[in-house]
Amino acid sequence: MTQLRKALRPSTKALPEYTRGHNRSLVLQTLYRDGRRSRADIARETGLTRVTVSALVAELIAEGLLVELGQREETRPGKPATLLDLDRSAFVIVGLDLSEHSVFTGALLDLDGAISTRVEVELAGSTGDEALAKVVDLAEQLVAAATAPVLGIGVGSPGVVDLGGVVLSAPNLGWNGLPLQALLAERFGVPVVVANDANAAILAEHSFGGAASDAMLVKIGHGVGAGLLLGGTPLFGSRFAAGEIGHVVVGTDGGAVCACGKRGCLETWLSIPNLHARLDRPENADARERDVVLREAGERLGIALAPVVGALDLGEVILSGPTDLLDGALASATVETLRNRTMAEFHGSVTLRMTALGPDIVLRGAAVMVLSSRLGVS
Amino acid sequence: MTQLRKALRPSTKALPEYTRGHNRSLVLQTLYRDGRRSRADIARETGLTRVTVSALVAELIAEGLLVELGQREETRPGKPATLLDLDRSAFVIVGLDLSEHSVFTGALLDLDGAISTRVEVELAGSTGDEALAKVVDLAEQLVAAATAPVLGIGVGSPGVVDLGGVVLSAPNLGWNGLPLQALLAERFGVPVVVANDANAAILAEHSFGGAASDAMLVKIGHGVGAGLLLGGTPLFGSRFAAGEIGHVVVGTDGGAVCACGKRGCLETWLSIPNLHARLDRPENADARERDVVLREAGERLGIALAPVVGALDLGEVILSGPTDLLDGALASATVETLRNRTMAEFHGSVTLRMTALGPDIVLRGAAVMVLSSRLGVS
Ligand SMILES: [Zn+2]
Ligand SMILES: [Zn+2]
Repeated sequence: MTQLRKALRPSTKALPEYTRGHNRSLVLQTLYRDGRRSRADIARETGLTRVTVSALVAELIAEGLLVELGQREETRPGKPATLLDLDRSAFVIVGLDLSEHSVFTGALLDLDGAISTRVEVELAGSTGDEALAKVVDLAEQLVAAATAPVLGIGVGSPGVVDLGGVVLSAPNLGWNGLPLQALLAERFGVPVVVANDANAAILAEHSFGGAASDAMLVKIGHGVGAGLLLGGTPLFGSRFAAGEIGHVVVGTDGGAVCACGKRGCLETWLSIPNLHARLDRPENADARERDVVLREAGERLGIALAPVVGALDLGEVILSGPTDLLDGALASATVETLRNRTMAEFHGSVTLRMTALGPDIVLRGAAVMVLSSRLGVS
Repeated sequence: MTQLRKALRPSTKALPEYTRGHNRSLVLQTLYRDGRRSRADIARETGLTRVTVSALVAELIAEGLLVELGQREETRPGKPATLLDLDRSAFVIVGLDLSEHSVFTGALLDLDGAISTRVEVELAGSTGDEALAKVVDLAEQLVAAATAPVLGIGVGSPGVVDLGGVVLSAPNLGWNGLPLQALLAERFGVPVVVANDANAAILAEHSFGGAASDAMLVKIGHGVGAGLLLGGTPLFGSRFAAGEIGHVVVGTDGGAVCACGKRGCLETWLSIPNLHARLDRPENADARERDVVLREAGERLGIALAPVVGALDLGEVILSGPTDLLDGALASATVETLRNRTMAEFHGSVTLRMTALGPDIVLRGAAVMVLSSRLGVS
């Protein structure tokens, strides 16, 4: 296959450089997850030689990524070992979440993905270049607030985003083929990674929320989208539109007319505005009727997901969105429906839960994207 | 992540050996797809040095995998180059297809996946050890018929098969946790690869049928199952049950009772016995009624696949099974339904077609599995 050969060729030529980058990531990854290691610890844990580790550590100290913490108390006689750690305050990450309907949110995050400064910019209905200007404004405020060098800018954008960070289509923002990653990189002179918001969210869930390697995160807000992790790798799809399930028709019994023109799309049952519209009807005022509405929405999600769980043999489905609406009758109905509509023997063990990362999930996923592209850690 | 570190560690230690195996596969892959290359051609196309290529070629000639074909007619003066090719008659592959309901089929295939000898063994309702004995009998006949050394045995089995070739569950054959790969390897003393039949089929489609890198093959026979290729890699799922879509409930309007006890499973509409049962009813005797039955089955397949196409952004869906039933009204209804139930902007370009590989698809996929595991080519 010519394609395969093409894919393999560059890695062969670049093998020494690739190996070096790979080893560097191994050292960083070891310290990222469990700091306070000596050079000997790192060599043992990575399988690299002492000489290789020492050279890489020297290089990473020079770059300001690692620090020496002093010497370990040794129980045995001999020269005590010097402990190393990532310098977790050496850099900050700028994370942007463009997925909310009326507001762009940004934050400064440390290398552990913890948020310090947070900034919001009201969208006020702006689209196109105006919306882009608000993204730049938001990033500017955060870069100005940074008290350490910026490792990179991560952005979770709605819509379809290609692997070069071009927003191919984000209808709500009026963006079509917007090279957001390149524009921000040029403007700020730091590395930028732009991805779909649900893809950012599943990465956050994998790094910080304990998601399984074969998991799907369904993000429910103004629209409904999903991020998929298969064998630990995010799925992008044949045209970068993986996870676009909001306008898939659910069931064979009609349904409300959707903004897209079809009837019975998943969003007509499940988007937060549509859920609120149903719940706000006078006849749904009491708790029992409210539960019926939420259960029905949950069932529709289960109906839509059953073929996906069956086809992919997912281990876990995670919901992200307003807990007051999703966590309860809706989530229970989803998992019940999933189990009733798949084969117990194969898929009966699929679990469903709310994310524990709350509304910061896209910001934290944006940080994972930067950590992964800049340091090879996650 | 400890898991990631664990996954990375062995490959680091094994890097030189890995590199050598990788380079060896590059040479084989180059010649596999386009034979009649000189050592210099191979070096240029793979990016490997002349010295490395010459050493690998010498080794592969000694193993009987490569042959020298004589010298190229040169237009320029100088020493003419010796052309090399894979010795396509040096080895045979044994392929077994256990996925048909009443018969086990086996074949000898050459390194190009072309079938020579073919053998069938009637199942006659046997299950468990009796069915296993028929697999051994089939393999024995083929190994005895081989006129060249056997490179390996590939097996496409129904049911859920783990990565070690253990058939975790194949209800029709009464197999539960059967270590088929290990048993055959011990019995025949050659490498054996066992995988799910639909997974074998999608590999055949990728190697010989031109399937896209993000494609799903739906295999319709006594049951309904699927094989998925994502980014060129087969998907196995969290419990090796990826593609098990036959007992996913389709639609929200009831349906026939399935063997599994649920109502409206995909198989109740689409399996070949159920299709025949519908078509054989007196009221469906004329061509128009026949089309209605086939269209309905196709619609149900489209309803089941729409969320999968949306979630995965598949480029292509391929059907495998009896052409007289699938290719026509059924396939047209499936693709129409898929388009009507997903978002045109994202998924409107998904294509659907019959496999061109016919009923040999699993046998040829079994050969791909052997080629890939033994030579790194596909
Ligand atoms: Zn819609
Ligand atoms: Zn069933």
